[in-house]
Amino acid sequence: MGSVDHHQSVQQQRHQVEVPPPQPFFNSLKISFKETFFPDDPFRQFKNKPSSKKIMLAIQYFFPIFQWAPKYTFNFFKADLIAGITIASLAIPQGISYAKLANLPPILGLYSSFIPPLIYAMMGSSRDLAVGTVAVGSLLMGSMLSDVVNPNEDPRLYLHLAFTATLFAGIFEAALGFFRLGLIVDFLSHATIVGFMGGAATVVCLQQLKSILGLVHFTHGADIISVMRSVFTQTHESKKRPRFFWVSAMAPLTSVILGSLLVYFTHAERHGVEVIGELKKGLNPPSVSKLVFVSPYITTAVKTGIVVGIISLAEGIAVGRSFAMYKNYNIDGNKEMIAMGTMNIVGSFTSCYITTAVNYNAGCKTAASNIIMSIAVMLTLLFLTPLFHYTPLVVLSAIIVSAMLGLIDYEAAIHLWKIDKFDFVVCMSAYIGVVFASVEIGLVIAVAISVLRVLLFIARPRTFVLGNIANSGIYRNVEQYPNAKHVPGILILEIDAPIYFANAGYLRERITRWVDEEESRIKATGETSLQYVIMDMSGVGNIDTSGISMLEEVKKITERRELQLVLVNPGSEVMKKLNKSKFQNHLGERWIYLTVEEAVGACNFNLHERRNLKNDESEGWNNV
Amino acid sequence: MGSVDHHQSVQQQRHQVEVPPPQPFFNSLKISFKETFFPDDPFRQFKNKPSSKKIMLAIQYFFPIFQWAPKYTFNFFKADLIAGITIASLAIPQGISYAKLANLPPILGLYSSFIPPLIYAMMGSSRDLAVGTVAVGSLLMGSMLSDVVNPNEDPRLYLHLAFTATLFAGIFEAALGFFRLGLIVDFLSHATIVGFMGGAATVVCLQQLKSILGLVHFTHGADIISVMRSVFTQTHESKKRPRFFWVSAMAPLTSVILGSLLVYFTHAERHGVEVIGELKKGLNPPSVSKLVFVSPYITTAVKTGIVVGIISLAEGIAVGRSFAMYKNYNIDGNKEMIAMGTMNIVGSFTSCYITTAVNYNAGCKTAASNIIMSIAVMLTLLFLTPLFHYTPLVVLSAIIVSAMLGLIDYEAAIHLWKIDKFDFVVCMSAYIGVVFASVEIGLVIAVAISVLRVLLFIARPRTFVLGNIANSGIYRNVEQYPNAKHVPGILILEIDAPIYFANAGYLRERITRWVDEEESRIKATGETSLQYVIMDMSGVGNIDTSGISMLEEVKKITERRELQLVLVNPGSEVMKKLNKSKFQNHLGERWIYLTVEEAVGACNFNLHERRNLKNDESEGWNNV
Repeated sequence: MGSVDHHQSVQQQRHQVEVPPPQPFFNSLKISFKETFFPDDPFRQFKNKPSSKKIMLAIQYFFPIFQWAPKYTFNFFKADLIAGITIASLAIPQGISYAKLANLPPILGLYSSFIPPLIYAMMGSSRDLAVGTVAVGSLLMGSMLSDVVNPNEDPRLYLHLAFTATLFAGIFEAALGFFRLGLIVDFLSHATIVGFMGGAATVVCLQQLKSILGLVHFTHGADIISVMRSVFTQTHESKKRPRFFWVSAMAPLTSVILGSLLVYFTHAERHGVEVIGELKKGLNPPSVSKLVFVSPYITTAVKTGIVVGIISLAEGIAVGRSFAMYKNYNIDGNKEMIAMGTMNIVGSFTSCYITTAVNYNAGCKTAASNIIMSIAVMLTLLFLTPLFHYTPLVVLSAIIVSAMLGLIDYEAAIHLWKIDKFDFVVCMSAYIGVVFASVEIGLVIAVAISVLRVLLFIARPRTFVLGNIANSGIYRNVEQYPNAKHVPGILILEIDAPIYFANAGYLRERITRWVDEEESRIKATGETSLQYVIMDMSGVGNIDTSGISMLEEVKKITERRELQLVLVNPGSEVMKKLNKSKFQNHLGERWIYLTVEEAVGACNFNLHERRNLKNDESEGWNNV
Repeated sequence: MGSVDHHQSVQQQRHQVEVPPPQPFFNSLKISFKETFFPDDPFRQFKNKPSSKKIMLAIQYFFPIFQWAPKYTFNFFKADLIAGITIASLAIPQGISYAKLANLPPILGLYSSFIPPLIYAMMGSSRDLAVGTVAVGSLLMGSMLSDVVNPNEDPRLYLHLAFTATLFAGIFEAALGFFRLGLIVDFLSHATIVGFMGGAATVVCLQQLKSILGLVHFTHGADIISVMRSVFTQTHESKKRPRFFWVSAMAPLTSVILGSLLVYFTHAERHGVEVIGELKKGLNPPSVSKLVFVSPYITTAVKTGIVVGIISLAEGIAVGRSFAMYKNYNIDGNKEMIAMGTMNIVGSFTSCYITTAVNYNAGCKTAASNIIMSIAVMLTLLFLTPLFHYTPLVVLSAIIVSAMLGLIDYEAAIHLWKIDKFDFVVCMSAYIGVVFASVEIGLVIAVAISVLRVLLFIARPRTFVLGNIANSGIYRNVEQYPNAKHVPGILILEIDAPIYFANAGYLRERITRWVDEEESRIKATGETSLQYVIMDMSGVGNIDTSGISMLEEVKKITERRELQLVLVNPGSEVMKKLNKSKFQNHLGERWIYLTVEEAVGACNFNLHERRNLKNDESEGWNNV
């Protein structure tokens, strides 16, 4: 096949770039609204159902308990019973310890493990999560509230402020879910969370180290250290060998029992070993009347509520999603937020502080395990609180430290460094910010850097020169494919990002510079002079008015240099706007091609024709 | 050609997707740093030059006057002389008017048109810009400073605060330029500026209307109104017919002269017409000692400086760039910022307030026109200030209003509505924010919405189903190309944005939903069951660790449904990370193809083989 024939056939093969069928403005607005806020299409199941069925589905949607309870079996119950008791044995000592971390009375940890799990059991859609207090949320609340009220000087006000902050956290969480703004949580990246958790864990460990070291001095150090060591090793092993989960799950409770017995029999509390002391028997007292809505405390409560709420959500939803992924069911992030928000609102009325969904990895089958756990905590509150009288605080510290060490996920940090340096920077900024400044500052820095990365991606998009891959009509970036061959007389550029105001100026200058560089390279090598600039727009997802102006300017710049601008494969959004702004007409429809191959074919054909006209010979151009 | 043969040839044609050649970490860091902060490669000209030449080039780089002065000709001078005088005749009345807008003594407008243009003439790289005070900058400074100090009650402190704010504006501008952070200005989109300017102009017009209407009552209303009307019409016409530029350029000065004469002869000032009054003769007094660095004023000065500085930069650089575009020369945004910063720093030492580069469209040839203008202002300061004694304030108001009306660019707003609704929303938010709240709030809202759009683009990227365009190996989005044909048994998806933490969760669920929808569609129509999910990654410019996890999860999801995941054309960044994270190995290299055509060919080949094995017949699949 002669090259002229070939090019003529290329000319014939030309495919049209289409402007997508016009859509009424409100229709397209509706679609993009739906994709933004209802990407999971939660109302899919309601379609084409009779209205009685719809009401039933709606109740089941908001209260999944009506979905799984009727199908509940005895086998499920056996699994949930064991799981629930296991969780309770972990949640009770941890709850007491974390309440201390938030500078709150230890009994609050138990209260918070009683009411919120009941709410979540009704409203939550995850089968694997338990509800309880968490270290990072407790730490955050403690540090933010202590800035305003000293918990030792005014413990009553501090306590009431904690309830109020919990209320606002709940309202904020439920509102995010209700207004489908769950996507805000998406902006806390995995890297941010790894760094943030690690930093918080380091801070807590350093704090607790003081009280642990303080105690070694007074009592039978070896015993405590051996308890600690066993706790540490067990926790560590449990990460690798889930078979020993029971051992590690029981470790905190065992430490508490052993520690309490030790103190009880040695009367170490009289020799300076601090113990928990009296815990009030009885269930959660109401706390509605204790909420503080007066200035200046309300500002603190709102601020703390928002920060603690969003962090708790991020933690809870990340865990929930990974389980759902693993066990192949769907959870609706926004609905989970409503569930968690409700449980914190109710919690703030019943003497609880912030709780979230956590993974105890205890083999739950349904949310019923939360009910079992809740009953276990209830029994503890009613009958077993005296048992904690002699529990030494140092055991609580050891429990906290052992839980915290698991949060310092250095392996994840190494993984980030290997794969994506920028993610590593985000992670380390969060870590350093939390450790050296404060929890809030660490969070703000990490989120700011993450968002900055997204903005930088848009502000400085990558542009590539494309070359032809031998024996094909494929054109690819010469940086990735060093063997891709340059086409004489034609500069092919690819833009990899939407063209927005933030990059329009940069792109104009970068494209001009590509042309400059190409022309000076050609001058040096004496190749065919540049005639065409082809811009592959496949990767340009969208364009705004600044972007259109940029294209107009590039067109002027190329015209001034006697170059022809050619566009390839503008996507639907771009094509719509090129059409509306008349750029399509200014450029000429014949200069918009569907593929680079067709565009190059047409340019080569023209180059050839022109040269034929000039000197009636056809040599030196055998590239396609 | 039989279909089997055809598919075998497709199998043979397979091209490899390459991992880009590895680059040392610091090398790639250096490259991306350079692209981010030095995209215009300002040091290009220094390469391979002897060091004496380098010093000369560096001086010329920072002081372009050494570049153009030696080549200056008499012809240039003639053009610049006329341009300079024209600008002066505009700048003098406008300067006086704008100083009033900033609640500053009128003489400051003259001072500010004397020193800063001299600095800019030496350091600026634009040939077309003049330097002077601007309405929006004056308004902003006036409104922000008046919040803290009442200019009528404490005019001295207010004045000194204005100098201090100007100093900080200058420092901020120069620092932005020096640290190559000019890209911050890129985030003020054209739409933001249109809305912002329009809003500011509306506010100013409403303010001035009061004083104009107040006066009509006292004096020969018809005369003033006719002056105003002529000013209006001339300004308006000048936009369309630059031939009448001279008329409109002279209008403000003519109004001032006519107005002053009128007052002088009718002694209207004794009947309640406010006039400028005494203007001190003489050049700028030094103001270094007047700068205020004490709390709480310094906070206001810094804040005002930053806001006013960035707005002035955005205005100046936008004008400079559009001229450079139009006349085909380059200006270096960051260097311009250093020039404007320096001119404001020096200005703050010599009784000037904020200035920026403005376009008077007066036919300047070089920056020498700024020197001419500066000399004209100097002569005015030395000898002509008494002439302004009788200038009625209402004329100044008329000048301001006429300049302001030109800033309300409703045509641009209509253009935005037509092409890009979102840009229109940004523009209107800026407008409404400025008019109904405050200048700062309008600015913050508009920038926030613009940035939100960029973030939403990333958080909710579009995904498309691709189909085959008849008689070709081209696969395109079926939404844009309704005739593109679906390939039986294969779902082809395209992702149009980088895969980042902010969209990883969304994409996982969206892809799962595409698969669900496809499977239920197939169930309904009884087509070939789904076997392959091809993901075209051409538009995915980058991926982070969350994105990689997302791909791992999608792989698991497809495997669980017995579907094979196939990737097509991952770009260099993506390929690098797929390789580092071992995803490439997990998926199997044979499931990564260079083009959709090759991937579909291979899938069809396998589908065929499988079916042949099953029932030894080859019917019903004739798509490629």
